[in-house]
This record gives sequence, structure tokens and C-alpha cells, in this order.
Amino acid sequence: MKRIGISIGDINGIGPEITLKAVNRIGGSSGVRFVVIGSETIVREQAAALNIPVSPEIEFVDVAAKAKWVPGEVCVDASLLAEQAIRCAVSKCLSGELDALVTAPIHKGALYHAGFRHPGHTEFLAELCAQGGKPPLPVMMLAHGGLRAVPLTIHVPLRDVPGLLSHELIVKAVRIVAQDLKQRFGIARPQIAVAGLNPHAGEGGGIGREEIDMIGPAVAQLQAEGVGVTGPLPADTLFYPSHWARYDAVVAMYHDQALIPIKTVAFDEAVNVTLGLPIVRTSPDHGTAFDLAGTGKASPASTRAALDWAARLAARKNPWAT
Amino acid sequence: MKRIGISIGDINGIGPEITLKAVNRIGGSSGVRFVVIGSETIVREQAAALNIPVSPEIEFVDVAAKAKWVPGEVCVDASLLAEQAIRCAVSKCLSGELDALVTAPIHKGALYHAGFRHPGHTEFLAELCAQGGKPPLPVMMLAHGGLRAVPLTIHVPLRDVPGLLSHELIVKAVRIVAQDLKQRFGIARPQIAVAGLNPHAGEGGGIGREEIDMIGPAVAQLQAEGVGVTGPLPADTLFYPSHWARYDAVVAMYHDQALIPIKTVAFDEAVNVTLGLPIVRTSPDHGTAFDLAGTGKASPASTRAALDWAARLAARKNPWAT
Repeated sequence: MKRIGISIGDINGIGPEITLKAVNRIGGSSGVRFVVIGSETIVREQAAALNIPVSPEIEFVDVAAKAKWVPGEVCVDASLLAEQAIRCAVSKCLSGELDALVTAPIHKGALYHAGFRHPGHTEFLAELCAQGGKPPLPVMMLAHGGLRAVPLTIHVPLRDVPGLLSHELIVKAVRIVAQDLKQRFGIARPQIAVAGLNPHAGEGGGIGREEIDMIGPAVAQLQAEGVGVTGPLPADTLFYPSHWARYDAVVAMYHDQALIPIKTVAFDEAVNVTLGLPIVRTSPDHGTAFDLAGTGKASPASTRAALDWAARLAARKNPWAT
Repeated sequence: MKRIGISIGDINGIGPEITLKAVNRIGGSSGVRFVVIGSETIVREQAAALNIPVSPEIEFVDVAAKAKWVPGEVCVDASLLAEQAIRCAVSKCLSGELDALVTAPIHKGALYHAGFRHPGHTEFLAELCAQGGKPPLPVMMLAHGGLRAVPLTIHVPLRDVPGLLSHELIVKAVRIVAQDLKQRFGIARPQIAVAGLNPHAGEGGGIGREEIDMIGPAVAQLQAEGVGVTGPLPADTLFYPSHWARYDAVVAMYHDQALIPIKTVAFDEAVNVTLGLPIVRTSPDHGTAFDLAGTGKASPASTRAALDWAARLAARKNPWAT
């Protein structure tokens, strides 16, 4: 019996609602226990208010922080509760008490207000997983069915992207993708495509030189190390279904290059999988949606997929085998 | 009876092959005549070699330049023939002898070799359409079914994109999109979405300022002029089918932001429609494919769609009405 922890996120967003709905959709036959970490009282309060049954598959673990449910409001108490829930969940994953972690959305602005000083959810998780003081490099993968895309840069202005990319970053990230595809997903010889930065992957230097000066040499180094990697490939034709289907993952250079094709194909069912951590972590690929909080209208599709994948990854099964 | 001109492009690429195949797929019941401009001899030579019937719906117009068919080779003679075919076709469109133009692919490298000095196919067409010495601003639209995307910058390095965008460019291009959607496509009140440049459209300035400093004010000016336009919107969620379906066109900031979703959805059936010209012009959204030339394996899907749309646009019907 695998145990999947769910850190409750910002209780004033849609996290508790979509968690309850997602567990209900999965039902009782999954051979998995769900452990909701945060506040049982508040989850039950929302369940009652929104008329959502609380599945008997759910266990609760409370943290010390207390907060009131104020749908759609930025509250320091809620942020502290969200942060404690994450700390508690990671520690239970590291100790083996939980087999995987699904994180419900947090609100970064609210957390900063409460004194949070990490660049984001994923970086915070990496710090909590640090061994010998050194956090691992977390690598974000967005996935839907056989389409998995890894953006090398994420929430940064587009004009900063070329300067943030480097030979070293590409090599490190692709190594992590290859390793996790093998170890966590059971893909014996993963094949990874690397997208170009420029239109048509620079067209031989006519439309930008990053492919020649940086991406190509990084791919060559990885190939020399035995990694199954190809590129740089033009990003537009790479996302033809017949094209990406040849690869186990596509490494993209920036946020929208990875997110546009995933969302175009997956609608609201894409899942965020963090590679490179010593724990299994997935999350829905959306935010707290404060505007929907308390309405009962939030879609649990992405959280349901995140729970499903967390369970499969925890079981070391290839989550894409059909 | 509408007459659609087809400039033959580089005869050593796949242009003649996909033209013949596309016309054959459309068949004789379309109420359209196809006028292939370039060299009847060479088209018939390729038809015989590749065993493709020459439809009786095709008329031929020869230009003065002569060339030999050498599949996959860069030849100055072929480039001169391609250039003359374009000049001839545009002049027949401007005189009303032809109702629309479909351009088969040219090879820019080959053309530059032959002394061609225009930035690209589309800019050359705009120059040929100049009135009073001033070429119109051509605006590229990539289209497939109800999804139409307009990239504001095209074949430029990604690092140059922020500097090439401007308030003025956005205003001018969106005006042209709105006007052509009305006049050519018969959409009474076109609704246009404008994408942001940065992830999450800059998230209120936290991830880049172009949305606040440039795109937002340009959209506001257009709205004040009465144009039906919304934005800047985050590019990733904008390409959810349920989201873009609300708009008659999406204006994107750069090549891959427009091309990735189109190609993800349309595979090889997207069409390039040039807005802003005094003539109707469409083209397949791919190149000369020298590597496939002479093999008979090239897909006519995009050219077939380009012919179909040229005919509908020439007839002033809404090509997206079903």
C-alpha cells in the first residue's frame, strides 16, 4: 500500500477543494492511501461548505499553525500553515513514511508577505531535501500522456532567457532528466530531444548563434557521455505529435516553449513532475486560483493526474506504459 | 470562375510535385481554374518522372527564364525562374487577371546567390505591390481551422525580439489583422487576442515589464480606436482550444509563440496567409525540402489547404464558416 502525501497549499485558494474532488474521482480501488497534511478541521469545513464528500481513503496530519478559511484572501496565517505543511510532508517523504508528495498550490505573494524567502515552491522543496547543506538541482517537467517537456528557464523575463542559459545548465539538466527517466520511470534507454532557442533552431547560424555556440556543444558532450540525446531541433516542428512521440522527453529553453505545446494538447490535465529530487513530487500545473476559491467550480483534473502519477512513480512503474 | 495563380517556386525543390498533387486532390468540381506560372515543360517533366497526372484544371503561363530540373540542387537559373514567376504572378493579380496567388516555396539561400536582395518571399511580394513607391506592411498569419496566429516578429534571433517589438508595430499589425478579417474574411466584428511576451504575460510586472510598458498601452490605443482586441494574455493558456476559440485571431510576439501551437494542432496542414497586401496570397507553411525533391514523397497537405483558402478568400467568403 503506497502512501501519497498531499501538502494542502494555501487554504484560501482552491487546494482543499481540488484535493477532495480528485481523491473522490480516483475512488477506493487504487491501492493507495492519501495523507492530507495541513489542517483536518479546515478541509472538513470546506468539504461541508462546498458539499464534497470526504473519502475514507484520506488520512489527515495536522501541523501546528492555525488559520481561518477566508476564501480568496491573502493571509499570513494561511501562508505559515502552507509552509509548515510542506516542511512536514517533505520530512515524512525523506523518512520513508510517505512514498510520494503532491503539493497543492501556494500563493507566492502571500508567502513573501509572511517572510518566505525562497524563489519558489520547487526551490523550497530542493532546500528541504538538501544533503550536506547542498540542495539538489530541481528540474521541472510538464507532462501529459506521452508528451513531456522540461523548460530550462521558467519564471523569468523573455529578454533574460539567452543570458540565463549555459552549456553547464543544459548538461546538468539533461543528465538529471535522463537519470530520472531511467530510475523513476523505468525507461531503460531514454531518448531526449533538445529544442533550439531561435526560430528554426537558428537555421545554421543565420537566425542566432546559441545553437552553434552553446546548445550543440552541450548536446555533443552529453552524447559523448552516453546520454541518448538529439538536438538542437527546431521547436515548432518538434511538437508535431509524430515528432515528439519519438522522444521520452523534450528539453525546451524557456517557459512558453514548453508550456504552449503542453497546454495546447493537455488543456487542464497536465502535471508538473519535479525531477532531480530524492523524493517523488508532482503537482497540478496551475495556481491557487483565488478568484475561484470557495465557489466549488474548480477543476480537479490536473490534481487527479498529479495523484495518479505520484502513485505510479512511487511504485516505480513506468507511468506512460499503457 | 475564379482563377488562382501558383508561382512555381524553386523547381529543384518540391514545389511542382506538391502543386500537381494538391490540384489533383481538389479535383475538377471546385469551380476554380489553376494557373501555374513558371515553366510548363519542367512541370510536365516532373509529372512524368514522378508519375503524377496533370489535371486538366491547370493552365500554364511560362516566364522567359529557362532552367534545368536538378532535384535538390541550388541553381542560379532555377532561382531566376522562381523570381520571374513571382513577378509575373503578382502583376497578373494586380491587373485582375488572377484572383489570388499561392506561392510554392523558394530557397532563400539560392536566391541570394542569384542576386536577390529582399529579406524574404513576403517582403518581395510587398515590394511588388507597392503603390506610389511605398510597399504595404505585410502581416503573416498562420492558420488551421479556427486557429489563426500572427507572429509580430518572424525569422530573427530570440534575443532580438524584445528590441524589435514596439507600440507602433503592435498597433499597425493589429489594425491590418482587424481590417483583413473584416474585408477579406467577412467577419463583421473580429475579436483579436494579443499574447504577452513574458511567462504569464509578465504577472503584473514581476516577470518582465513589456506588457505594462508597451503591449498594454498599444492594446488600449486600439480599443480606443474601436478595434475588438484583448490583451496582453498569457501565451500558454491562450492556446487552450476553449480559449483561442473565443478569438478570430491571436497576435503573438515571436515566431515560436505562434508556430508551436499551430504546428502542434495542424501537423502539416497549416497555411500561411499574408494580410495587408492588395492581393490575396497564401502559401504552404514549409520550405523547398530539397532533401525530398524528386522522390515523390512530399506531402501536398499544406499546399492543398493553401489553394483551398486562396479560392475561398478570392470569393470573399469566410473561409472558416462551415
